[in-house]
Parts: sequence; C-alpha cells; structure tokens
Amino acid sequence: MSSQLGYNIKVQIFGQSHSKEIGVVIDGLPAGFEIDLDEINEFLDRRKGGKNSYSTKRTETDLPKILSGLVDGKTCGAPLTATFENNDTKSKDYSQFERLPRPSHADYNASIKHKKSNDIRGGGHFSGRLTLPMCFAGAVCKQILRTKDIYIGSHILSINDIIDDKFNPVSISKEQLSYDGFPALNESIGEQMQEYMTQIASEGDSIGGVVETAIIGLPIGLGNPNWQGIENRIASAIFGIPAVRGIEFGLGFEATKMKGSEHNDPYDLIDGKVLPKTNNAGGAVGGITTGQPVLFNVAFKPTPSIVKPQTTWNLETNKLDELQITGRHDPCIVPRAVPVVEAVSAIVALDLMLDNRGEI
Amino acid sequence: MSSQLGYNIKVQIFGQSHSKEIGVVIDGLPAGFEIDLDEINEFLDRRKGGKNSYSTKRTETDLPKILSGLVDGKTCGAPLTATFENNDTKSKDYSQFERLPRPSHADYNASIKHKKSNDIRGGGHFSGRLTLPMCFAGAVCKQILRTKDIYIGSHILSINDIIDDKFNPVSISKEQLSYDGFPALNESIGEQMQEYMTQIASEGDSIGGVVETAIIGLPIGLGNPNWQGIENRIASAIFGIPAVRGIEFGLGFEATKMKGSEHNDPYDLIDGKVLPKTNNAGGAVGGITTGQPVLFNVAFKPTPSIVKPQTTWNLETNKLDELQITGRHDPCIVPRAVPVVEAVSAIVALDLMLDNRGEI
Amino acid sequence: MSSQLGYNIKVQIFGQSHSKEIGVVIDGLPAGFEIDLDEINEFLDRRKGGKNSYSTKRTETDLPKILSGLVDGKTCGAPLTATFENNDTKSKDYSQFERLPRPSHADYNASIKHKKSNDIRGGGHFSGRLTLPMCFAGAVCKQILRTKDIYIGSHILSINDIIDDKFNPVSISKEQLSYDGFPALNESIGEQMQEYMTQIASEGDSIGGVVETAIIGLPIGLGNPNWQGIENRIASAIFGIPAVRGIEFGLGFEATKMKGSEHNDPYDLIDGKVLPKTNNAGGAVGGITTGQPVLFNVAFKPTPSIVKPQTTWNLETNKLDELQITGRHDPCIVPRAVPVVEAVSAIVALDLMLDNRGEI
Amino acid sequence: MSSQLGYNIKVQIFGQSHSKEIGVVIDGLPAGFEIDLDEINEFLDRRKGGKNSYSTKRTETDLPKILSGLVDGKTCGAPLTATFENNDTKSKDYSQFERLPRPSHADYNASIKHKKSNDIRGGGHFSGRLTLPMCFAGAVCKQILRTKDIYIGSHILSINDIIDDKFNPVSISKEQLSYDGFPALNESIGEQMQEYMTQIASEGDSIGGVVETAIIGLPIGLGNPNWQGIENRIASAIFGIPAVRGIEFGLGFEATKMKGSEHNDPYDLIDGKVLPKTNNAGGAVGGITTGQPVLFNVAFKPTPSIVKPQTTWNLETNKLDELQITGRHDPCIVPRAVPVVEAVSAIVALDLMLDNRGEI
Repeated sequence: MSSQLGYNIKVQIFGQSHSKEIGVVIDGLPAGFEIDLDEINEFLDRRKGGKNSYSTKRTETDLPKILSGLVDGKTCGAPLTATFENNDTKSKDYSQFERLPRPSHADYNASIKHKKSNDIRGGGHFSGRLTLPMCFAGAVCKQILRTKDIYIGSHILSINDIIDDKFNPVSISKEQLSYDGFPALNESIGEQMQEYMTQIASEGDSIGGVVETAIIGLPIGLGNPNWQGIENRIASAIFGIPAVRGIEFGLGFEATKMKGSEHNDPYDLIDGKVLPKTNNAGGAVGGITTGQPVLFNVAFKPTPSIVKPQTTWNLETNKLDELQITGRHDPCIVPRAVPVVEAVSAIVALDLMLDNRGEI
Repeated sequence: MSSQLGYNIKVQIFGQSHSKEIGVVIDGLPAGFEIDLDEINEFLDRRKGGKNSYSTKRTETDLPKILSGLVDGKTCGAPLTATFENNDTKSKDYSQFERLPRPSHADYNASIKHKKSNDIRGGGHFSGRLTLPMCFAGAVCKQILRTKDIYIGSHILSINDIIDDKFNPVSISKEQLSYDGFPALNESIGEQMQEYMTQIASEGDSIGGVVETAIIGLPIGLGNPNWQGIENRIASAIFGIPAVRGIEFGLGFEATKMKGSEHNDPYDLIDGKVLPKTNNAGGAVGGITTGQPVLFNVAFKPTPSIVKPQTTWNLETNKLDELQITGRHDPCIVPRAVPVVEAVSAIVALDLMLDNRGEI
Repeated sequence: MSSQLGYNIKVQIFGQSHSKEIGVVIDGLPAGFEIDLDEINEFLDRRKGGKNSYSTKRTETDLPKILSGLVDGKTCGAPLTATFENNDTKSKDYSQFERLPRPSHADYNASIKHKKSNDIRGGGHFSGRLTLPMCFAGAVCKQILRTKDIYIGSHILSINDIIDDKFNPVSISKEQLSYDGFPALNESIGEQMQEYMTQIASEGDSIGGVVETAIIGLPIGLGNPNWQGIENRIASAIFGIPAVRGIEFGLGFEATKMKGSEHNDPYDLIDGKVLPKTNNAGGAVGGITTGQPVLFNVAFKPTPSIVKPQTTWNLETNKLDELQITGRHDPCIVPRAVPVVEAVSAIVALDLMLDNRGEI
Repeated sequence: MSSQLGYNIKVQIFGQSHSKEIGVVIDGLPAGFEIDLDEINEFLDRRKGGKNSYSTKRTETDLPKILSGLVDGKTCGAPLTATFENNDTKSKDYSQFERLPRPSHADYNASIKHKKSNDIRGGGHFSGRLTLPMCFAGAVCKQILRTKDIYIGSHILSINDIIDDKFNPVSISKEQLSYDGFPALNESIGEQMQEYMTQIASEGDSIGGVVETAIIGLPIGLGNPNWQGIENRIASAIFGIPAVRGIEFGLGFEATKMKGSEHNDPYDLIDGKVLPKTNNAGGAVGGITTGQPVLFNVAFKPTPSIVKPQTTWNLETNKLDELQITGRHDPCIVPRAVPVVEAVSAIVALDLMLDNRGEI
C-alpha cells in the first residue's frame, strides 16, 4: 500500500525508472469535470529535465496516454488512468550499484527489504521519474480545485543561502501563484540561484534547497484534530516526494523562538469574515483551516548522485571501494521539485475538499 | 476517522478535556506480551502537570483503568482499552471563548466545522489532555518494542535559543534514551532552560521549543518508498500532537545548505553490518530504514494560552475586544511534550515492525 | 484492525465477555445531533437475554455509561464513547475449554492465532456479548438516519422451516419496521416459532434461523461499483455478527433459478420518481441504490453451545473425550440477533450516507 | 476508493468497457516470486467469451501488457501493472440506454450518482469486462499462494435446478481444483447445464446459477473476529463481481434448519492436527480458519441483458416504452464467472496470508 495517496480519492502510482511504462490511477474523482489536457502538458513541462545545465540529461517526451476515466474530455466517475513511456533509458549505467551501493540512495536497504529482487536500474520505483505521474494527478486535481477558486503555487525559497522573497502570508492572489520561467518570486534572486546551481554542477557536486507553498481559497473548518488534520495529511503526502527531509507550517521552526504574545494570530473581521489577522500559523490551527492561506516549507536534500568520486562498501569484494557515478542526474533537484510539491499539495487539497463536512 | 493512528495496530483516542472520562483503545496488538502497569504509570508521570512553575496548575491522578485486553497481565489479542477520569475540571473558565475566540486556538474554526456544537470547555477534543491516552498507548508499545531491543528516547533540543547537546547520530545506547528529572542531555543547559521558562511564566507569556528523538534498534529494510515510508508515517503521527509546527529528519533543513559531497553518508562495514558510516539522513533513505538510528526534530510553537491580555474579535458585539485568559495552562508545553513525542513515535515504530516483510 | 467498522465513521468495539467493561467508540459522527438515551435503552432492551426459556440466563443491566462525545445531549464532533459493565460473569464455567475445545466455537483456532494467550472466559472477544456495543452504536446511527427519513427494521423470516411473511419489497412504511414483542411480522407464526424454540431448549439442543432486513429511504445513487458497493459494505459488516453463515440481497439464491425475463425489474414512474417497478434486486444494482428498499436475508447457524453432551478432542490427554457445556447460552440466538442486524445495518447506512457524493 | 481490493496488497482495477484500455495495479506484492505469464494467459482464457452459444459474441485477444513490477520475470516489490486493449467495441449499440435505461442494469442509478457523466457505453466501469483485470490479479496471487501449497478452485454448483456434485468438505486434493473444459465436477451434469443454457440462449432469455469454491491449505488461525474475518473479507470481495446476489459459507442457509447437535463440527486428531472432523462451518469459526477447506457458494442472478423485448421508462418521452437490447451479452454468465470467483478468492487468500500473525 506504499504507492498510494489519499482517502477520498486514491492516487496509485506505478512503474520503475526503466520499466516499460509508468503511470497513475486516480480512483474516486468526482464526475463531470472537464480536464484540459493541453494545460496538463504545460504543467508536466515544468518538471521536465534536460533543459539546462543543472538538470538531468535524460529526455523523455512525457506525454500522457489516457487509458480510462475520461469521456468526451470529462471525468466519468470511473478511475482515471494515464501512462507514460520510458524511452531514454540507459540501464547499463546502473549495473555496478548492485555491488557498490550509492551513498544516501535506497539501493542497499531496498535490496535488503526486497531480498535482492528490487529493480536497481535507474533507482527502480524509488526514482524521481515517478514524480511524473504524481504531477499528472496533481494537475488534474488543480483543475478541479480551480472550479472552487482554490489555487496552489510553490516557489524556491532558498538554494543554499540564497533566499527568495516569501509569500505574503495573508494576501496572495492567484496570479502570484503562477509564473513563467524560473520559479523564484524575485527574478534577480532567481538568477543568482541559477548561477550558483550551474557552478555546483560544474564542480560535479549537488545542492539542496527549500520550497515554499501556498494553498489559497480553502474554506474555514476543513480538516480534523489529531491524525487527519491539514498538517498530517500534507506532511505525509509531501514526504512521498524523493529527497524531502523536513516540512514546517507557517513560521515552523522559527516559531519555537517566539513568545506566545508574538506568535499568536489575533482574530479580526476581514472582508466580512472572522479571520486571524496575521497568519503565523500557516492557515491551520488544531489541524483545521482558519481561512487564511495554508503555507508550508519543504526541505530538499542535495541530490545524492554526484559526479565526484565517493567511497562506498563493495559488497562483492567486501572492501571499501571508490564509486564513480556515470548516470544522468540533476545537480539540483529543487527547480524540478517545485511543480511536484504543487501537484502533491493539490491532491491533498482536493482530498480534503471531498471530506464529509458533517452533512448526511 | 481523525482520532485514530496506525495501520497494523489502530490506536483510537477519545474524550474531551472536560468529558466524564478520556481514554484509548488499541486494536491489533499482538497477544502474549506482559505489560507492566507500574512502569506505565511512571511513564505517564513524566507528562503530568502541576509540578513546577512552568506547567499547568490542573492536577489529575492520571491513573489508567484497564477495561479490556489484558488477561493475567498479558495482552490477549483483543483490543486493549484504558480510561482516565477527568476530575479537576473548571468548565466555567471557558464559557467566554464562545464569543471571544482565543488567538491561535481551534475554538473558532472548530465551531465552524462542527456547526457550533463543538465542546469548547477546556478545548474539548483539541485539548492537550488527550496526549494522556496517547502516552498510555505509547508506553504499551515501548514495552513490546523492548522485547526486540528497540528503544526510543526524546529530549529538549532547544527552548528559544538555549540549545542542548544532540544525540550522537551513529552511537546511542539505550541508557542514553532514558533519564530522571528534566529532559535535557546536558544538565546545566537544562537548568538554564528551566530558569528561562520560569521567567517567561512570570511575564504571563509562553515559549516554544524543539524536541529531538531517536529510535534505535530498528532493522534495515523497514518502511516503504512513496507514502508509507518511515518519514511519512512518523510525520503524520507527530502532527497529531497539539502545537507541533514542523518536523525534520536527520539534518533536515540544515541539509539544504550542504553539498551532496558533504551530506552523503558513505557505506562501511560496522560491527559486521553494511551501514552508512555517518547518519546525516537520520536513519531513513527512500522511506526505508538504513539500520542507523532514526533521528528527527519536532518544532513546538509557544502555548497560545497566555496570561497577558490579547485582542480578539467579539462574536457577540461584532467588535474587537480584549481577551483575558484565566484558565490553567502551560507557559511552556515542551517538557511535558517530550514523553508524548516518545509515545507517538513508539506507536509508529511498533506499527512499522508489524508490517508484512515480504513473507507469506 | 479487526474490531472496527466503517469508512466515514469508525465504530471500534472493545471488551471480552468477562473483562471489566465492554464498550464502543464512534469516531467521525457529524456534530449537532440530539441523541435520546432513553430510546437507546429501549433498543438495547430488545437484545437483552434472560427474559424467556430460549435465551441465556445471564442477566446484565446493560446500561451504557457515556464517557465522551455528547455535550448537552448532542453530538459534539468528538468520538462518542459508551461502556457497559460486565457483572454477571461466571468465569469458572469456562476453564475446561482450554483442554476441551467446544465444537464450532473459536476456542481452539483463536488459541492457535493468539499463541494460547486468548481470553477463553465466556468466549472472550468472540462472545455474543460484544453485540451489545454494536447495538449501542447502531441505535445512535438509527436516530441520526431518522432525521433524513431513513428507517431500518428486521424480523425473523424463519426458524427451522417455520416461515414468517416477507416484507413487501416495494412498499414498506416506517411503522412496519418497528414493533413490540416478538420480532415476527405474522403474530401467529411468531407464536409457533417461540413454541418450537422452547421445545428445542428443553431438548438441550439449539436451532438457527434467518433474519430479513429492510432499509427504506436511502436516496438513488448511493454506493459504488466493485468493492465499495451497498452489498459489499453490508455483507462485510453483517459477517461481523457472531453465528452468521450467509447473506443474500433481494431474491438472492432464489434468483439463480429465474430467467432474466422473470428476474429483471422494469423501470416505471412511481410517485414522481423513476424506479424499478418490482424489486427483485433488493434495492441495489451495480452496487448502487435504486431508490427501492434495500432488502437482505441473513442466515444464523444454530448456537454451538448446547446442553447435550458432545465429543471433542482433549488437548491434555490427547484422546477423544466427552464435553458437557454448563455455561449459560441461548438455545436460539435469532430473536436477540434481530436488533443486532438492525444496528449493524444502521451503522453501514449512516456510513454510506456520509460518503462524498461527487460534490467538492 | 471503490475499485480497490485488499489490505496488505491493494488491487486497483481501472477501465471502462469501451475505454482505450483496461487494467490493474497490484501494490504490495512480496518481491522475488516468479510469475509464469503463459500460465496466466491460460487462466485468462478460461473467462474468455465468444467460444460457444451461451456466451457473448464480443471477442478480444485479452493479452496482458506488463507495464511495471516484474524484473526478469520476478516480482520486484514495486507495483505490478498490466493492461489490456479494448478493440472489439461497438459503442453505437449503447446510445439508446441513456433514454431507455435497461432493467436491472446500473445505467440509470449510475447516471444519477455521476450527474449524467457516467460512461454508458458497454456499461462503462460496471461492465463484466472489468473482471478481466480481476482475473489477471487473481492469477498472479494463485501462483504465489501455490508456493505455500495453497490452492483455490471453483465449479458451477447449479444452473437453475441442475445441480452438480459438491466438493467433499474435508478432503479435497489440488488436482480436484483444476480441470479442463466445462467447470462442473460431474461431466454428464455439465453437459445438461450446457444444453440448458443453449436452449435459454435460443429463447432470447438468460439464466443464473451458483458457484462453489474451495480454498485448501490455509493454516489454522488466520483471520479475525468481527470485521476482518475470513467471511467478511471474502464476502466483501466477492460482491465486487457483477451479478452476485448472495454468498454462504459452509452449509450456509441450510444450516438454519439444523440443530446444534447436527451442525456442530466435533474436534478430532486428523493427520496429526486437531481439526473439526466434519466441516459444516466451511473452514471458518469466529472469522478464523480452522484448518479445514474454506468453502462457500456464490449466487449469480440471470444476466439482465436479454434479447427478448422489455418494458422500461423512456426518460425523453416520459412514457413507458419497449426496449430491444441489441448488444452482445452472455445468456448465462456463470461459466465465465467461475475463474473470476477463483481469482477474487485468490486475492483475498494472499491478502490474508500477508496479515501480521502476531510476530514483531
């Protein structure tokens, strides 16, 4: 049950980096919603690699084939299924990892889990390639959410210590959540980030970063206390994205250094609604939406596959050995992760909107 | 389904701050394990309030009544149920919050969710009091895990900017995971923390902090990629504790500022096992345990209930108004949260251990 | 996760026949519904034993203690918990079953499952006593369903070959679903049933029977194809009642002997709605309600505990041995099972009504 | 979540009768099991239509395309995905059903559920065609179960009142569970069934029947009381097969006419194991296996699509109207349903085998 997300909708991804195809089944989608496939392709294009010096050289068309679930372009209530071909695979690059497990990759512990039967080619089911069907599912959910004026956007908050502007926590328009080009709010900071990533790539190294996300338009009172709250469901979903190491809502870890009198969000009447005037909480209190934007930051570690030689344990010779990774990898995964975070957030947001809200 | 945790075991908590009783049902526990109730009471004593100047004045005996699930002190395979009485309740303290919702509490958004039928007394089901049955369940799980040499411990990593020592990421003994007195590894730092919290309490204010946790003894290969991994399940569970705003595994947000060559954990042979030599990953790669300690930090916000007067919206007069909170609250919840984090982590750890591991 | 029922609401029962208390937690109930406890007690009284010659001599007050979830008599959105005391327990009656497992009881296979740690007293968690908390939960659900004009009723369709009238499949009033006294539609047939059961009791034997159930008022279009349909969810729930051996919807097994031209239910306009004119299908086609009453029959086996001596394997002497059961048991469980079937059906019906219906 | 089956493995089917493709994802399969695709194709061939006078004229190659989850013919721990093309579709046959809903089909109530956006062509997601991916998944599970000496077989117990022999409840060899040709244990009765079905087909009518199933080799002590028992899980799964109206375990409804002294299964020592000597219970007591074969009967209604003209409500003219169904349908679905019942049973049996059994 590991590759499935959601309660009211079930998003089941499948495939390995070098399997014949990869894809996704979305079960439980409400019927009657028009899905714009061109727009989905534009969204998928945002995560595509091979476009610059700091992303992987692997190129795929990434065009979805819709197997089921749409009739005349509209959801029909049956599971919506899309698949993608894997064409640009170079499985030979990976054969050495059975004896030389890559540091900070799942090669070795997955082989223990799966009794040496795991698919090691390209990382198998653990590959970042599986974020493609996540994006497809998220793009579908985004379109459905839009009919209720719910919008989601992410941007790179930081690469190393180059820090972008933050979303205004209490005032975000839908226009601010979509953009062309590099996903930074501040264009010149975005350029610094790109320069830095290019430099890291040239060093044969990698770097991580933080992605900030906002969900706007969710009604007050969505979610639950304890284990089905906004934060539980978003956090659990987001850790499904490879390379995520942390998540914080609102001011997050910064809040631990504030006094209650500083951190508390007083209520006020705003545009006819009783809302927290500030939004240090990131839109959720007690696991339930407050009506302010839901805001959270996600930490991505540096890509573990680097060009620089590394030491690892050789499982055949039973000695330390040098590992030289020759596959194609992203020196910084963060720019391509931005739409993935949006997509996964959209799945959770639609799933939350489909919760029963006390009506029978 | 909001107040339930786990896949293989189901931990269902119930009760409100001022309901007749609160409690927990644990379904799916393996049979035949001896449960030491005295030891559970010692554990529950660690979260008890009323013991110092920086915790609530509410005092309860917090003695569990076992309704079912034990026969001759051993689990019998039937659901294990424990309840606790609520005796020291002062419901009058809370009547004003229906018209004057407390900033950064769930009073208002829960009333929207529940159509004004929510139990507002003491925060109802949103109260920190519900961490008591969480602790009971976690204490049971800890005892069962111990039979497999799996141990869990937490300590306060920081209060404001007073920072404790960290666990050694690759070498933690079970003795280091348990202690008497204040939950800081460094005793003198612990004293600074207590002084600081006492001062914050005297100001009528509150403060947050960070809790570090280690789980040792989990075998290599536990967990899953995508959405049933170590991180997903721990994160989802931990956000069920009131006041949590963030979680990070291993180096977490710090990892975003490191290069791959610095952050990667090379494999080596350690005590006859192939393990990452360092443990920047916090014991999990690809959602699967590596055999090194699972390590994570949890951010707690400052308690929202403070003595200082605050501004909020008066729902009766439809004007801004001053709110003076007179109930009994913890100026800093973090010391009492330490066993709660341990307990919730133990529930997840046992649940993970009960996963099918590819054997039929 | 075995003792839990429902998707949108979670009904968790707990307790053993001779544990301190038994009870139920209902999580996910919508808030704001008034619960009439006197009416619940009347419902619970319908399953109470000790009232006649064909039911157990064990007598309990069966009064629920409400621990949480109600405020001023209304559901508050937090889990609703009720417990019941076990007072009239005679555990000595059961000690022999560890070595002399009762035929057609779960004594032996449960001891294998639970490694000899199961609670054998009174059947432990397998006891019919656990139908009491099921009834409590069902009684709550019935009251909530009534606010939407949904009603549920069951009666004994047959005891051995004494056969009651059937519900009219297309025309059932709510009055026909409730009654005083013995649960047979035809009073004189009910008397025959009682005479027959009294005779069976006097023989030291037992007998089974069939219960027919109707749910009226469910809207058209509820349910799902495949594995979340009306039939799947009802069947799965009903087999949770001890002693059930079969379930059939509409004409059920009789339908297998009909031609399509006889069995098909043609559509017609009835009271302004397009409905099947006949209801051979029992109100569900494709797993989805048709708007006609949902109808199903449940088969109960004869009570396995009989006074007559039986042969069984003696686990101590490793020989065949004679078993003489001396505990208190129901020579026919069917009359007491009627409200249990209603209760479990009500839980499922409310759970179905809380399904998302394609609205976001 | 309607098109998903299982707890430890998740079998997600997708597709509509006339969608581009249909298929299945199996998540959670243990790694390292060899899958024989030729044998799967033989199994799928058993449900194929177009082979005789009493089955549909629609012909499809029904060859699975494996998209993911196998490496070198072995399960790799990642989701196993197979798809099938829909080629022989005649969607025009179905256009009239939007205004003339077919009696006892889900055309009308599904259109209400899905707000007229359901896929009506060929019955859409409600079509018997979706039993093809069920069979694929079941065939995979059967192969894995065989490694543990667990076998499953079904046969037609009755068509109308032509009744086959029954399985011997306490002695079934694996050879008796597989056969060539028509799925009746008694060959001459099988011939009578075929003659009768051919005659029914010539009348333009349809007929139902009963399928008997046995699962042999399950260990003692599998399953649970209440809602995760053998019967609950099998029943819930089996009602996912279109046209099922009832299920009974062991003697089922017949047991309701027996006395306890007749129905009880006394324990004895058989081949070194303590087992019920008879098996009226059908291999499960208290929701838990006894070690005897699990036995159950499934009732299939007559195919609702018949050639004979029928009356239905015309949704356009708002009058009663005559409906003439011209699509291709099975006059008796039961022979093709036999492998489907086996398949679904195999999925449940493997899922049960993957339950945690009290080991940590």
